[in-house]
Amino acid sequence: MAHTAELIAVGTELLLGNIANTNAQLLSQSLSALGIDVHWHTVVGDNPQRLQEALDIARRRADILITTGGLGPTYDDLTKQTICAAFGKPLVLHPDILEDIRAFYESALHVPMPDNNTQQAQLPEGCTVFDNPVGTAPGCAFEADGVHVLMLPGPSHEMEAMLHRWVEPYLRTLSSDVIVSRDIMTFGMGESSVDALLHETMSRMENPTLATYAKPCEVRLRATAKAPTREAAEAMLDPVEAQVRAALGDVVYGVNVGGLPEVCLALLKERHLTFATAESCTGGRVAERITALPGASAVYRGGVVSYWTEVKAAVLGVPQPLLDQYGAVSEECARAMAEGARRITGADLAVSVTGVAGPDPDERGVPVGIVYIGLATPEGTFCRKMDSGRRRRDRIQALAANHAFDLIRRYLTGLPIAPPSLEGNP
Amino acid sequence: MAHTAELIAVGTELLLGNIANTNAQLLSQSLSALGIDVHWHTVVGDNPQRLQEALDIARRRADILITTGGLGPTYDDLTKQTICAAFGKPLVLHPDILEDIRAFYESALHVPMPDNNTQQAQLPEGCTVFDNPVGTAPGCAFEADGVHVLMLPGPSHEMEAMLHRWVEPYLRTLSSDVIVSRDIMTFGMGESSVDALLHETMSRMENPTLATYAKPCEVRLRATAKAPTREAAEAMLDPVEAQVRAALGDVVYGVNVGGLPEVCLALLKERHLTFATAESCTGGRVAERITALPGASAVYRGGVVSYWTEVKAAVLGVPQPLLDQYGAVSEECARAMAEGARRITGADLAVSVTGVAGPDPDERGVPVGIVYIGLATPEGTFCRKMDSGRRRRDRIQALAANHAFDLIRRYLTGLPIAPPSLEGNP
Repeated sequence: MAHTAELIAVGTELLLGNIANTNAQLLSQSLSALGIDVHWHTVVGDNPQRLQEALDIARRRADILITTGGLGPTYDDLTKQTICAAFGKPLVLHPDILEDIRAFYESALHVPMPDNNTQQAQLPEGCTVFDNPVGTAPGCAFEADGVHVLMLPGPSHEMEAMLHRWVEPYLRTLSSDVIVSRDIMTFGMGESSVDALLHETMSRMENPTLATYAKPCEVRLRATAKAPTREAAEAMLDPVEAQVRAALGDVVYGVNVGGLPEVCLALLKERHLTFATAESCTGGRVAERITALPGASAVYRGGVVSYWTEVKAAVLGVPQPLLDQYGAVSEECARAMAEGARRITGADLAVSVTGVAGPDPDERGVPVGIVYIGLATPEGTFCRKMDSGRRRRDRIQALAANHAFDLIRRYLTGLPIAPPSLEGNP
Repeated sequence: MAHTAELIAVGTELLLGNIANTNAQLLSQSLSALGIDVHWHTVVGDNPQRLQEALDIARRRADILITTGGLGPTYDDLTKQTICAAFGKPLVLHPDILEDIRAFYESALHVPMPDNNTQQAQLPEGCTVFDNPVGTAPGCAFEADGVHVLMLPGPSHEMEAMLHRWVEPYLRTLSSDVIVSRDIMTFGMGESSVDALLHETMSRMENPTLATYAKPCEVRLRATAKAPTREAAEAMLDPVEAQVRAALGDVVYGVNVGGLPEVCLALLKERHLTFATAESCTGGRVAERITALPGASAVYRGGVVSYWTEVKAAVLGVPQPLLDQYGAVSEECARAMAEGARRITGADLAVSVTGVAGPDPDERGVPVGIVYIGLATPEGTFCRKMDSGRRRRDRIQALAANHAFDLIRRYLTGLPIAPPSLEGNP
């Protein structure tokens, strides 16, 4: 049976424009991948009358209602009460959930649970409970009058964690087909170039489908197949992946992987190698992205954020005459930074980044968007120049950090170090 | 007269999750500043029946309807036709607009205007036209049956340009009140504790209002007042801010500021001081957050990510006997790291972070969530211990980075260095 979903976001902060409704975007992506049509998004404030009205309208035109928000412990969190009243479901205390919340406060936060958290353990009678892996408000789902109602928390990181862990499997049971997706990750080619190479293919496809998603500084391609079994779906995806790889070449850096840092972590581990960082304009972003991953200490020794030129000289040992002659934003400096970081940390490899993130050019007039990325290895030092053009500071920093990881990946997999197309994604 | 607005976004790409509805966020911010209540956001696809249904519902509950999207030249751009049919307005060709579009093609794009662009010059009879300064689709507004209908283009940069240039002045003529908000930023107390202290106050308030928003590891309170003038609204907010400050004390770190790094940047600049970092478990996050800000180089010299113990010893000069006796996750090590970073960078202050971000305890059995934050200053070295409990790795890292900035803020403003409540926000 074909389902139609409506997403209802509850939160006055959305109506005031404090945040965008990114939960609706994430949910829509998942529902679309599961083959469930979404015909409406609705946003209401923390107001039970208007939420009631939204539910009355939505249940007439959709058979899956998914709410986000209003599950917190404060007085204006009224989603559960309003939905239970609308669907004639009693709200009952789940003692085991109360214990979980209490235990979370006492053992993890070392404080007693505030009384108002009790209401987070109240859930509709007979519902399926969705544990919250990263917060205290559980989500839930029930069916009433032929409508599936799912309630999810509002904070994005809680909603997203619950979505992948519980909501997608729950929704998958409503459909007889399985839907399998493959995320083909690329770095080094802009979305319009990817689109130009694959547009013909994509527009002809119905099942499987292929779509591009521009992530910051990368392009993800998602191939999705619908079939009676997982095996059949995977078999449909193999030729799509092959076609994408043939069209895009070595800008494809992985399939169903989190990002370039994950790929580098795996490659370095496999080869029992360690690396270090020397960062100027990225100001610690390369270090931050690798240390975001559990197990990073197996491959990452540490590094230096040499934001001031004096720190490049004093800590990394970049020779002062080199800095005087070429400036801090130069290929020579990038090479010396990488070599310095390798020497002082004892790592096998060291990557360096020096450039102009803006908003102003550097004191020698090097324009915003010029960045040099160095890589010191036992076989010598390599350098790549990136010219992103004048973009926002955070985009330039993120793009430069991706280049650093891409340089490591290319070195370790024996690919040409030569820069990929520097178009990126604005 | 008080107005109520509903925003209707038209576009299948929103329902597929390809983009988030950031137009609704921008419009909501503007409407809120103009004192116009927004009670609903609705999203429909490029489907005239469902847009018709959305209009029928919206005109019963709002007297300002603003649509975004569906004004383009292609076959699925049906907003104008559908709205004109719903409100009984004929769609008429505006020859002057047609000339503008034709001139835009010929002089700016150097190609003849495609025939299907003619429909962009069709607008409701008697409407106010909003020129599009950055594209070809004009927007427009008309009043019918006591409802103001505004149609704006979907691409964000076109919508935004038109919003500020035409839409805000148009809406200003409809309203007599202004709305002013103040964001009161806090660090060191969890959302439920803040709520418990201010719950009584918040639930009694109507104008101004006060609400809490949990950001990662912080709580933001937003006070909002509606009044005939900005001055009157500000005068209403003063006592609210005073009441919040009295209730929460020195966990309030600023009003209408971006975050703790911004506050530290301003304090350090004012005092002509520089700082450095020595990070272990935060892996570069403190450096990353300060260097995200333009102008950070005025106060931030750089730092070391001493992820491996060997790097703490070799680069920061933490004595090996100290590491052997107390371990890398210890108050002693945090102090030595901060002092080492201060010494090698020549900064006035240096902040250090060493702890266990998880998922596993450290090799000496220190549990996940224990972090020491050090601050070396000309007046001696301080240290704070944070025990966040067992949380997700990224949360522990983000919380620890906030503690580092909070320590700098407290030192520079003469507040007790003693840790605030360590409950934070899960």
